[in-house]
Amino acid sequence: MPTILVTNDDGVYSSGIRAIRQSVDGLGNVTVAAPSMQKSGVGRSVSVFEPLRLSEIKLETFDAYAVAGTPADSVILAIFVILDRLPDLCVSGFNIGENISTDTVTTSGTIGAALESASYGIPTIAASIQVTDQGDKFDDHRHYEYDFDLGIDLVRRISKHALKRGFPDGVDVLNVNIPRNATPDTRVEITRLSRKIFKTAVSERHDPRGRPYYWIDGDLVQDDEAGTDVHALVRGYVSITPLTLDSTVGLDQLTTWAIPESLVAAVETMLG
Amino acid sequence: MPTILVTNDDGVYSSGIRAIRQSVDGLGNVTVAAPSMQKSGVGRSVSVFEPLRLSEIKLETFDAYAVAGTPADSVILAIFVILDRLPDLCVSGFNIGENISTDTVTTSGTIGAALESASYGIPTIAASIQVTDQGDKFDDHRHYEYDFDLGIDLVRRISKHALKRGFPDGVDVLNVNIPRNATPDTRVEITRLSRKIFKTAVSERHDPRGRPYYWIDGDLVQDDEAGTDVHALVRGYVSITPLTLDSTVGLDQLTTWAIPESLVAAVETMLG
Repeated sequence: MPTILVTNDDGVYSSGIRAIRQSVDGLGNVTVAAPSMQKSGVGRSVSVFEPLRLSEIKLETFDAYAVAGTPADSVILAIFVILDRLPDLCVSGFNIGENISTDTVTTSGTIGAALESASYGIPTIAASIQVTDQGDKFDDHRHYEYDFDLGIDLVRRISKHALKRGFPDGVDVLNVNIPRNATPDTRVEITRLSRKIFKTAVSERHDPRGRPYYWIDGDLVQDDEAGTDVHALVRGYVSITPLTLDSTVGLDQLTTWAIPESLVAAVETMLG
Repeated sequence: MPTILVTNDDGVYSSGIRAIRQSVDGLGNVTVAAPSMQKSGVGRSVSVFEPLRLSEIKLETFDAYAVAGTPADSVILAIFVILDRLPDLCVSGFNIGENISTDTVTTSGTIGAALESASYGIPTIAASIQVTDQGDKFDDHRHYEYDFDLGIDLVRRISKHALKRGFPDGVDVLNVNIPRNATPDTRVEITRLSRKIFKTAVSERHDPRGRPYYWIDGDLVQDDEAGTDVHALVRGYVSITPLTLDSTVGLDQLTTWAIPESLVAAVETMLG
């Protein structure tokens, strides 16, 4: 029986993790380990200054582990304490809120957990459900209004495939985003990351003593070039983006740059 | 005069940020904005649940802004509150401790700040100094024993170049790592990211009531293939790795994978 790890960033008590657990139910020995509370926006943060607590908890239909840390911490404790082996597959989600564009891939805890898992060579699926109201991301009650059926089916099919054949060479994470009102007829697109999703802004408030403080805020980019995840999701399509951990720029691109003299020798050596 | 932003993840009071500020001294209007305390390992985390405070502080030779948040928060407040414009260049560092391999690129606050800056199209240099003792990363007194001279000179030369011509197409961040005992004769290599730097481990302790808690720990990978940043630094060379924000896997690689039937149509469309 394969070993399957289930995690997320909305926390172990979220409706999304219950749903994604159903995706892999019966496909192997399933372990659920996730943050004890919502940890959105922390990317692949790893706790290096604080020790971590790990609690076994009993949910309605399954047992799980709550980690008082980040999503990546949860993956590390799952692998090195709970399982003491590498799982054959990891699924991270369902995040309530789409994870699209380079902005979210580098800041999302859902993706952060997936990157941590993938760094050990484990085929990993990150899956998120689009919200129509950004406030829904942070309202646990409204999370229960979401319909996960299509997502469950899709992640189940990809999971079965990955358990049988692994991922293609070079693919570390499959990042799946499911539009809010998806049906079995919803089109699926393989996409590339959009460059941006947030039009970042900061709003200033004042405390009762008149001193300023700041909230990071910002609207969403509403569209982008064809072929991107933003373009697909905005049109109501499922978006699947294959991600790599290796963000090195292809060396051939460097030849377009006039290299500072001091670096010429090194670059020549490198380019052979 | 160009506008230059200086940031880091070791905190605004660190010796490393004073040194990297020297790199860009005189090249433009320089603003220093960084976390008010050490924020290592938080990647590109952005504070979405907490508001942020911003303080103007006076250091020995320059003024700076301390942000009670993450490195990426510091960049956002610098751009949207302090400067109210996009800087022409951003430098993040000097981190005390090498930032090499996909492991650190996705978890380092130094790189996290750089990715945030680069996401607005700003040419951004992340720079780190190798430590010989991992404990040095967290010992502020020992930070002052480091010799930044070679790093200062190297980042200054790259900064001048970037201000004149920008970065090559596709390059978002130049990730510079300087070996501990570098001299002007030290070889410079353009590298790709190593896959891993940490051999992750977890150590268990027990509190006075006998209950377990866990520390994430782990040795460093001591070598890797030629061409990687780890390989270069281990040999005492300066490593410069060009990074992209776009971690999409090249679509051509996907053809090596038998795609689940349900996805075939979408993939065919995409591959034209």
